Amino acid sequence: MIDTATHPWLGDLLGDTQIAAIFQPDAELRRLLKVEAAWTRAIGSVAADGTADRVAVAIENAPIDPSTLKAGTTQDGVPIPALVRLLRDHVGPDHAALVHTGMTSQDVMDTSLMLALGDVLSVMENRMSALDQQLLDMQAAFKGRTMPAYTRMQPALQTTVHDVIGRWRNPFERLMNDARDLTNKVRIVQWGGPIGARDHAQAQAIGAAFAENLGLRDPGQAWHTDRSVVLDVAYLLSRISIATGKIGEDVCVFALAGAENITFTGGGSSAMPHKNNPVKAEALVALADFATVLATNLNRSARHEGFRSGRAWTLEWLILPQLCASVGAGTLLAAHTIEDIISMGAI
Amino acid sequence: MIDTATHPWLGDLLGDTQIAAIFQPDAELRRLLKVEAAWTRAIGSVAADGTADRVAVAIENAPIDPSTLKAGTTQDGVPIPALVRLLRDHVGPDHAALVHTGMTSQDVMDTSLMLALGDVLSVMENRMSALDQQLLDMQAAFKGRTMPAYTRMQPALQTTVHDVIGRWRNPFERLMNDARDLTNKVRIVQWGGPIGARDHAQAQAIGAAFAENLGLRDPGQAWHTDRSVVLDVAYLLSRISIATGKIGEDVCVFALAGAENITFTGGGSSAMPHKNNPVKAEALVALADFATVLATNLNRSARHEGFRSGRAWTLEWLILPQLCASVGAGTLLAAHTIEDIISMGAI
Amino acid sequence: MIDTATHPWLGDLLGDTQIAAIFQPDAELRRLLKVEAAWTRAIGSVAADGTADRVAVAIENAPIDPSTLKAGTTQDGVPIPALVRLLRDHVGPDHAALVHTGMTSQDVMDTSLMLALGDVLSVMENRMSALDQQLLDMQAAFKGRTMPAYTRMQPALQTTVHDVIGRWRNPFERLMNDARDLTNKVRIVQWGGPIGARDHAQAQAIGAAFAENLGLRDPGQAWHTDRSVVLDVAYLLSRISIATGKIGEDVCVFALAGAENITFTGGGSSAMPHKNNPVKAEALVALADFATVLATNLNRSARHEGFRSGRAWTLEWLILPQLCASVGAGTLLAAHTIEDIISMGAI
Amino acid sequence: MIDTATHPWLGDLLGDTQIAAIFQPDAELRRLLKVEAAWTRAIGSVAADGTADRVAVAIENAPIDPSTLKAGTTQDGVPIPALVRLLRDHVGPDHAALVHTGMTSQDVMDTSLMLALGDVLSVMENRMSALDQQLLDMQAAFKGRTMPAYTRMQPALQTTVHDVIGRWRNPFERLMNDARDLTNKVRIVQWGGPIGARDHAQAQAIGAAFAENLGLRDPGQAWHTDRSVVLDVAYLLSRISIATGKIGEDVCVFALAGAENITFTGGGSSAMPHKNNPVKAEALVALADFATVLATNLNRSARHEGFRSGRAWTLEWLILPQLCASVGAGTLLAAHTIEDIISMGAI
Repeated sequence: MIDTATHPWLGDLLGDTQIAAIFQPDAELRRLLKVEAAWTRAIGSVAADGTADRVAVAIENAPIDPSTLKAGTTQDGVPIPALVRLLRDHVGPDHAALVHTGMTSQDVMDTSLMLALGDVLSVMENRMSALDQQLLDMQAAFKGRTMPAYTRMQPALQTTVHDVIGRWRNPFERLMNDARDLTNKVRIVQWGGPIGARDHAQAQAIGAAFAENLGLRDPGQAWHTDRSVVLDVAYLLSRISIATGKIGEDVCVFALAGAENITFTGGGSSAMPHKNNPVKAEALVALADFATVLATNLNRSARHEGFRSGRAWTLEWLILPQLCASVGAGTLLAAHTIEDIISMGAI
Repeated sequence: MIDTATHPWLGDLLGDTQIAAIFQPDAELRRLLKVEAAWTRAIGSVAADGTADRVAVAIENAPIDPSTLKAGTTQDGVPIPALVRLLRDHVGPDHAALVHTGMTSQDVMDTSLMLALGDVLSVMENRMSALDQQLLDMQAAFKGRTMPAYTRMQPALQTTVHDVIGRWRNPFERLMNDARDLTNKVRIVQWGGPIGARDHAQAQAIGAAFAENLGLRDPGQAWHTDRSVVLDVAYLLSRISIATGKIGEDVCVFALAGAENITFTGGGSSAMPHKNNPVKAEALVALADFATVLATNLNRSARHEGFRSGRAWTLEWLILPQLCASVGAGTLLAAHTIEDIISMGAI
Repeated sequence: MIDTATHPWLGDLLGDTQIAAIFQPDAELRRLLKVEAAWTRAIGSVAADGTADRVAVAIENAPIDPSTLKAGTTQDGVPIPALVRLLRDHVGPDHAALVHTGMTSQDVMDTSLMLALGDVLSVMENRMSALDQQLLDMQAAFKGRTMPAYTRMQPALQTTVHDVIGRWRNPFERLMNDARDLTNKVRIVQWGGPIGARDHAQAQAIGAAFAENLGLRDPGQAWHTDRSVVLDVAYLLSRISIATGKIGEDVCVFALAGAENITFTGGGSSAMPHKNNPVKAEALVALADFATVLATNLNRSARHEGFRSGRAWTLEWLILPQLCASVGAGTLLAAHTIEDIISMGAI
Repeated sequence: MIDTATHPWLGDLLGDTQIAAIFQPDAELRRLLKVEAAWTRAIGSVAADGTADRVAVAIENAPIDPSTLKAGTTQDGVPIPALVRLLRDHVGPDHAALVHTGMTSQDVMDTSLMLALGDVLSVMENRMSALDQQLLDMQAAFKGRTMPAYTRMQPALQTTVHDVIGRWRNPFERLMNDARDLTNKVRIVQWGGPIGARDHAQAQAIGAAFAENLGLRDPGQAWHTDRSVVLDVAYLLSRISIATGKIGEDVCVFALAGAENITFTGGGSSAMPHKNNPVKAEALVALADFATVLATNLNRSARHEGFRSGRAWTLEWLILPQLCASVGAGTLLAAHTIEDIISMGAI
């Protein structure tokens, strides 16, 4: 669709290269290989067969032909069957059984997704922490200043700029805590095999080894049809976008109500030099609205019929990366919007 | 728009009289009066003035003229200013200052909403507990039976009916825990006054007394522009609807795939006697789809500009009661759908 | 699930009794009986049997027990099978074959829906015409006045109040034309029988007679799985809500930017007498946002699998009446918002 | 913001390189320069100054530094101010007045969008025509075959495969007509200047020349705050995705109900050789679900406050290109899904 992160001119307004990088095909392929290698080591360790490590290294460094992967994805609806064929060819017939045996495609992709979401959450937590510090600094800088509290789009009573900024800061404490908790919660593997039953004599040992090889935990059973953990991430991202969106909306409202409330750099108009448009704040609102739209869809993709849903799962792929990237772009743009503020309130 | 709960024929398919009753105007008015009375007692207790209790009782029993309330709501966008005028007239000029002084309309309505949501959550928790028991009984009844696990809309390997039902039960444990936690979390008052500043010499004592009079907690500050608690309820309701919706969707899928998977009563067709339509399961899917988008669109109503947003808040009123009622209807219909099941799987 | 039209205090702010009346159970039941009677006359006319008219009159005046209808709807997912049983009992075994034979439930309900949507569109067209006249009068009243054109939430160049109001009027010309075209387009019957095949020797004559008896046209084939005509109505309603929502949003923006732009009556605050809140304009924005949410869902309910979809169709029932009523409420509230305007711009 | 079109493995399942190419930055930049050049020729023609053509050619061939454009977009919220500075530098101070004078950023971008949407619609019309021919051929190939008509997810009566496919074909006739009408409707320029007033002595002549230079029509006034034409395109795209999504959903339903209904190539499972997953049909449903919500949420971005809305307009940028690309991908995947069908129904 359009990758705003790499877009030659929209990139710094609406894009987020850091989050986008997490979902780039190359990064995803590396994660998929990492997961397959961890699995090979897991089943190898159970079999006490010394070759597993060497096969795992071969997997991690396997050259993957994108066109084979593409043809396979179009055929199978997921890239994993083609990837496994390539890997088995690569390690040779003697070691083919050490590749992927006992897993199913969704196991690989959902485990890879957990690694990606862990990275996303960690980025988000750091950005919220920096945003909160920016806002704290701004409270100090505008100490003692006052401005009207706006209720129902009208000036109500006078309040302090400290209080106005305090309302912006308010959600971040809980959001940072939730991000931290969730970072831990997503650090799990998905493993179930064809129908999620973990049909293997040494299931417990293999699950534990698989998880340990990836620095994750084994939740003890397959969870792929219950997308709660994905919904939890989306719910957190939604609330982050509401928090950054409010900053954008308030800056628009304060600026419209008068320069005694707020002044900022940027947003000039060549045709009308007197104007000072709140363009970053406007884009911040647009990103928040966009994230909400995407979150709407994610609830749909969370109801998986039977033991595996191709339709719901594919819908999740279309939504989740850009939900992460658009909320990420909102955190970046919120920081820029705040940086641009010259003054708030009156002495 | 249409009250499905009281609808003469849709009521038992798509309605939920118990949840609807919580949001009925009469119940809401009683809650509003209860909140106003609790406030009167709170400010009276601080002033150590013995009349507050008598005024509070008068408030609780005040006759309220709906047409005055209606005209006031149309004028002010909220019913509270007109309600306060009626109450002050009712208690007389000597005690008028004991009515509402220090509060603002949103304080009354949001506190009332917390009482309503506490009731909603308690109903939901009980229903989920009953649903889970129904499913547990069904696991026992169909012990030893097998059927195909469906993946990607096709039969995969054989699995047990126990496991199929286990996947239905799976989300409820966390959902019941979350409902319990949230029932506690919503038991808070909202109080802030005109711009949420709690501008009162004895704010702490008044807040504490106000909360105690309602059996709620005082969070210590106004939270009205941060709708996190409402979003948390919506997020829980959303996930309940995903869990009940999956039961509906699976019943449709199993029934289509063949009578060896599932048989149930009901859903006859007068024109085609061989048919056994999964009508309740279908309506369950419809309710889940309806609830999900309502819930997610609360994200829109959660971004309140400035210190009070008429537009976002009014949007919340339009969505929240029917979100509760449609998820409630889904829990009722899930119970009926399960009751109708005659058999699952083969021996 | 809350009927805002009959709500004791929200009714004049967020409700629309006229549109709600169209969808009230009594009105719907009368339409259903009217459709069944028209069908009886249609099959009777083909059979040249003089009793059809008398049976049709009996149908139109049949007493219907709501509790029987309710039990039947819960059982069958639609009220029609129970209704037909009641009607056949009512007309007696000799004439039972003249009731409903050759139709299916969806034929009755979709034909009834077309009658309802015709009424809705006619109300909308009249209201838009009145709104446009109001705006035209306001252009005349504020002739020669100027105010800033706001671009990107900032004052740009001066423009005329005439031009500001002209932008509000702009969409209505096309919307009224589209409403008129669509009023004609929805005046069709749905008839197909069990699987939509019109399996009857005299299908053409019966279809024509059925339509004529209702003052509708026969499109010549069943269209029930193709919801285009419903989507067309929803698309029109969506655009009406965008047009009325813009009036609301602009009034909020102009009022915030200063009293030299706009003044209006109403929206007083008891605690802060200096305030003049744009409460109706805010509620207008909320109604538009709400309508958009509902329209979102309607696209989902438009994809009907196979030859009849219970899930998609039931979802449509949950959405469509309140989409009509909330857009209707927006047209009423837009009229009130405009009435309240005292002045716009400066001389 | 993953570009599925260029994605190394998702590209042929979920991507559409042809539509994506229309919105690629390079193509968009070429359109923007084309529009600026057309404008230069338009104002030059009015001034009867021979230099305009040479300046227009210089504009069309101007080297544009992406980093300057990016910095400008981040600053101004739109790329045009920076682009105009680059173009004026390029043509030199003597001719700078021939660049962009009298236009505003949105005029350039919206006119460019109309060119892009014209291309999109033309692609869609051709693809629907090809799809319809494919379905017509399939009707001929399976002539005389029968299968059950499924109503409410259950087999009803027998019908012909011809009729089943006929229901798939049904919407395309109107959709192709609408695409054709709309292709003509979008062939308009947007021109209004700073506040949309066309404040120029020779406005009519300039508007006409501007349009003619681009092969478009001049609607005679600015329409930028009324997004009807964008909504019309989104509404058409939405209905296309409903039509292709139904094919996907029906294939899933028919395949689940039994091989006597449908068989197709592809969708093999390495772990379960007996399986034949309808993976393309599933992805088709996912694309339709994705497109539908994107389309409807353009309703949000269609309400532009005042004379220009940065927030609503930016939201449109985020949604529209991927709406076009995902509906486009659906038309491609529908063709592949149909190609894969080996047989339908029984003889």
